[in-house]
Amino acid sequence: MDIAAVNLMSYEHFLDIFGNIIEKCPLITGAVWSKRPYSSIAELESCVCEFIDFLPSSGKEGILRCHPDLAGRELASGTLTEESQQEQSHAGLISLTSTEQDRMTLLNSQYKNKFGFPFVICAKMAYKTKIMSELSSRILNDPSQELQNGIEEVKKICHLRVQDIFFKNSKLPTKL
Amino acid sequence: MDIAAVNLMSYEHFLDIFGNIIEKCPLITGAVWSKRPYSSIAELESCVCEFIDFLPSSGKEGILRCHPDLAGRELASGTLTEESQQEQSHAGLISLTSTEQDRMTLLNSQYKNKFGFPFVICAKMAYKTKIMSELSSRILNDPSQELQNGIEEVKKICHLRVQDIFFKNSKLPTKL
Repeated sequence: MDIAAVNLMSYEHFLDIFGNIIEKCPLITGAVWSKRPYSSIAELESCVCEFIDFLPSSGKEGILRCHPDLAGRELASGTLTEESQQEQSHAGLISLTSTEQDRMTLLNSQYKNKFGFPFVICAKMAYKTKIMSELSSRILNDPSQELQNGIEEVKKICHLRVQDIFFKNSKLPTKL
Repeated sequence: MDIAAVNLMSYEHFLDIFGNIIEKCPLITGAVWSKRPYSSIAELESCVCEFIDFLPSSGKEGILRCHPDLAGRELASGTLTEESQQEQSHAGLISLTSTEQDRMTLLNSQYKNKFGFPFVICAKMAYKTKIMSELSSRILNDPSQELQNGIEEVKKICHLRVQDIFFKNSKLPTKL
């Protein structure tokens, strides 16, 4: 799969492939289909970022609220999306000690009470110890800064998910 | 449940209850949680409509693209959301004759080819014969008119889904 193949996709095929590059927000995938043809994969990602940046604060908060807690109820109940399951697993969040789990649950709860959205971090770029120290640190920020931080992490997650989709399909473009 | 109870909900509880009032767009539900407290159920719906109206055309198209075809592949494969399943069933779309099914498939396909999004209609307010005549007629519109028509139908669907949620919970407010 290369960008030319992506440009030829029907919106239904495009949603089947890219529908969860922003967690549980196929609206955004559906929106950027309108921007084809893309000259590159980077341009596809840029369209996603531009769409997100255009949203009012409530919309950005809405995106964060579609994200699961890290090491939270969805992980425990097996109801994470496939992508989130992989990411949380990669970060070591499926094998927390009971002390770590208690601390994570407490911090998640405090974070959500303060900001009204969950702590979002690109779990594939961090390990559980780093994630917990980031959570302890970011919880001290003010809400507008933390909204911006969360959205920047969403964009990193999107980038890795897009890369992953292209890697999974054998005919790799020369540049990602 | 009344509006006071809704105003007290965490964003997670709110998403559990109202997450699909716009088909597969929990982003929008998550966004309007920021607008609480609501003075009425109507105000909750107004916040949803305002959010949708604020979106660029690509975003409105994105919302439509999250909707399934009527009498399409998701109905056949049993993968509709619970709400869509009820609505399509109510409209008689699960018991089409083979001639009706062929016509529906053809019209859906022609509509999507022309507009790049699926035909959306509030199926609970129409029966299959009315739906097919509307589809035959709306397919003749220009794209901007049809985008607007589709979004107006999305708002009607949202209104009925919200009503349904309140009806299902026994303590009905006096005014919907």
